[in-house]
Amino acid sequence: MKDLDIEITLSSKKKTIPPFDQLEFGRTFTDHMFIWDYTEGKGWHDPRIVPYQSIALDPAATVFHYGQTVFEGLKAYHTKDEQILLFRPDQNMKRLNRSNDRLCIPKIDEELALSALKQLIAVDRDWVPTVEGTSLYIRPFIIATEPHLGVEPARNYRFMIILSPVGAYYKEGINPVRIAVESDYVRAVAGGTGNAKTAGNYAASLKASESASENGYSQVLWLDGKERQYIEEVGSMNIFFKINGEVITPVLNGSILEGITRKSIIELLKYWNIPVVERKISIHEVQQAYNDGLLEEAFGTGTAAVISPIGELFWQNEKLAINNGEIGQLSKKLYDSLTGIQKGTEPDPFGWTLKL
Amino acid sequence: MKDLDIEITLSSKKKTIPPFDQLEFGRTFTDHMFIWDYTEGKGWHDPRIVPYQSIALDPAATVFHYGQTVFEGLKAYHTKDEQILLFRPDQNMKRLNRSNDRLCIPKIDEELALSALKQLIAVDRDWVPTVEGTSLYIRPFIIATEPHLGVEPARNYRFMIILSPVGAYYKEGINPVRIAVESDYVRAVAGGTGNAKTAGNYAASLKASESASENGYSQVLWLDGKERQYIEEVGSMNIFFKINGEVITPVLNGSILEGITRKSIIELLKYWNIPVVERKISIHEVQQAYNDGLLEEAFGTGTAAVISPIGELFWQNEKLAINNGEIGQLSKKLYDSLTGIQKGTEPDPFGWTLKL
Ligand SMILES: Cc1ncc(COP(=O)(O)O)c(C=O)c1O
Ligand SMILES: Cc1ncc(COP(=O)(O)O)c(C=O)c1O
Repeated sequence: MKDLDIEITLSSKKKTIPPFDQLEFGRTFTDHMFIWDYTEGKGWHDPRIVPYQSIALDPAATVFHYGQTVFEGLKAYHTKDEQILLFRPDQNMKRLNRSNDRLCIPKIDEELALSALKQLIAVDRDWVPTVEGTSLYIRPFIIATEPHLGVEPARNYRFMIILSPVGAYYKEGINPVRIAVESDYVRAVAGGTGNAKTAGNYAASLKASESASENGYSQVLWLDGKERQYIEEVGSMNIFFKINGEVITPVLNGSILEGITRKSIIELLKYWNIPVVERKISIHEVQQAYNDGLLEEAFGTGTAAVISPIGELFWQNEKLAINNGEIGQLSKKLYDSLTGIQKGTEPDPFGWTLKL
Repeated sequence: MKDLDIEITLSSKKKTIPPFDQLEFGRTFTDHMFIWDYTEGKGWHDPRIVPYQSIALDPAATVFHYGQTVFEGLKAYHTKDEQILLFRPDQNMKRLNRSNDRLCIPKIDEELALSALKQLIAVDRDWVPTVEGTSLYIRPFIIATEPHLGVEPARNYRFMIILSPVGAYYKEGINPVRIAVESDYVRAVAGGTGNAKTAGNYAASLKASESASENGYSQVLWLDGKERQYIEEVGSMNIFFKINGEVITPVLNGSILEGITRKSIIELLKYWNIPVVERKISIHEVQQAYNDGLLEEAFGTGTAAVISPIGELFWQNEKLAINNGEIGQLSKKLYDSLTGIQKGTEPDPFGWTLKL
């Protein structure tokens, strides 16, 4: 693997590392961050690790006005034997470049970016939490920095990586969540940016989440923007259903983000010889399966929560209670296996983890 | 009108004002800017005019990751008798609040925001350019500043206004532009954020513009995301067609931005008793009208270019040359009338302009 030659400036004032059993999600950041600048004609230059600090931007910077930005999210885990494991980080760098392409942001060298990520974690390795259920959340992101009010790709960008020690995503543990099917708002449509990890998709989703949570639901289930019947994602997660013994997840259609957890789950299920299929699935089909007593499990998948079982689906004034609102057997098995591989307590037949 | 009590810190080092006949669009900014902060529980506070400067943000600020941001764009014009006119600024503040609502950003007091805008321009009034075709472009915008990696509305925001003296949007004057109909990418879909002025919409549009311009087209014409046949907008402008004596513009359907130029043009046409209608219009209908020799004019409308005549539409390997690629009579009349009202050289029967 190639290494990136990084200038490192260590922080002279170390922060106090918070107690690892009291971590929130995404509110505490480590002592250092990685920065890499892009200038048109010069490419990516001056990679550096510096003390975590505010960044100064011109108020006309493109990111504030025209949202040219992409990001990734992955985790590092502390193993029992004091090692640090990353989960499929190459996949995140690949997806970052796919997002870059959609957002007209210059590509990064995936191997060098991964090298930067590893070096940054090595500098802040004391921040990788050790308590059960915790991890170090890693956020690589790129923003357009050119001060220019014009709707065209910027000439300057900044790639950064910040790190946040996190507790479990759902404080209550992997208890099933209640989900409302969204019929007014749309997350993304084919031809849009739904399959890229870019800021605007998340801004677009806030309003729906807000009304869901006002009604006591923890997230929304997104339907397609065209026919408003095909299931796309749940919150910021991919979604799976187990119907009559078969596992079904919406096929990637241009508006769904290609989750790395999703991909890993499909691979795991195939490895276990459990039937799994990627195809279009409508909310009507789910409702029908429920009525027929065939809807066995449903769960969301994503880096933050890994597996998030769905205990209730609310649609058109009806409540579909899935598996009596309890976590399903398969959901539990997938959660245990995947987190086991991630933390190094289970064998990793796929070579998914990368030792720091 | 209410006034906002603003703390003003004047710049000690004034910049050199660029020659007004050599202005580009959105690259030069004036000596000062306006800032107003929002803190949950405290509301909008500390309105201030300060020297134009970089702003410092935590790298975890929500705007970089989840794109919670809205903006506006309007212009101030220098009149022959040394006055400064704003064009329908109340409409921009109203739209800003509509965008805020969609993006879960706390509302601003529209009158106070307008007061801030007027005070800022007064401070930088020497920057309002005097040369024909120039104006002062005004960019109010709000960004989420809370450092938090979580997909939920932020607790902190910053409202800013920056000013940029601008030349004509199209350097070549109001010559008709060549437009490619976009069939792969989609700007927005009903239920999404298309009717809000938020960063993500513009990021989503870059890829299509890029390929259009590689093929020699200056912008794309957007079709609806659902059926891919109804016309929505052109570039970042609303669109009008004149077919057989009647003016048609796509009806506001949730994915189209409600342009203030669009609104003004509809009002002007009605005032002139020229038939104008807001309704769905498909690309097939435009093509048919063209084949029948009834497509008389087509033009985009927006603050930046005011009226941008379309000389050619490229669709499915066919080139529709509109009005022989020349500016149409009505397009010209609308441009002259609207810019005349804006600059105060024509009477303003609607009370659209606001004297500073
Ligand atoms: C919109 C959306 N869908 C799905 C996912 C799941 O992707 P991954 O499994 O790579 O975390 C994410 C990211 O977490 C996301 O933001
Ligand atoms: C997407 C989009 N459509 C239309 C318009 C036209 O709106 P207005 O006439 O208010 O400038 C704009 C803004 O300029 C825009 O960004």
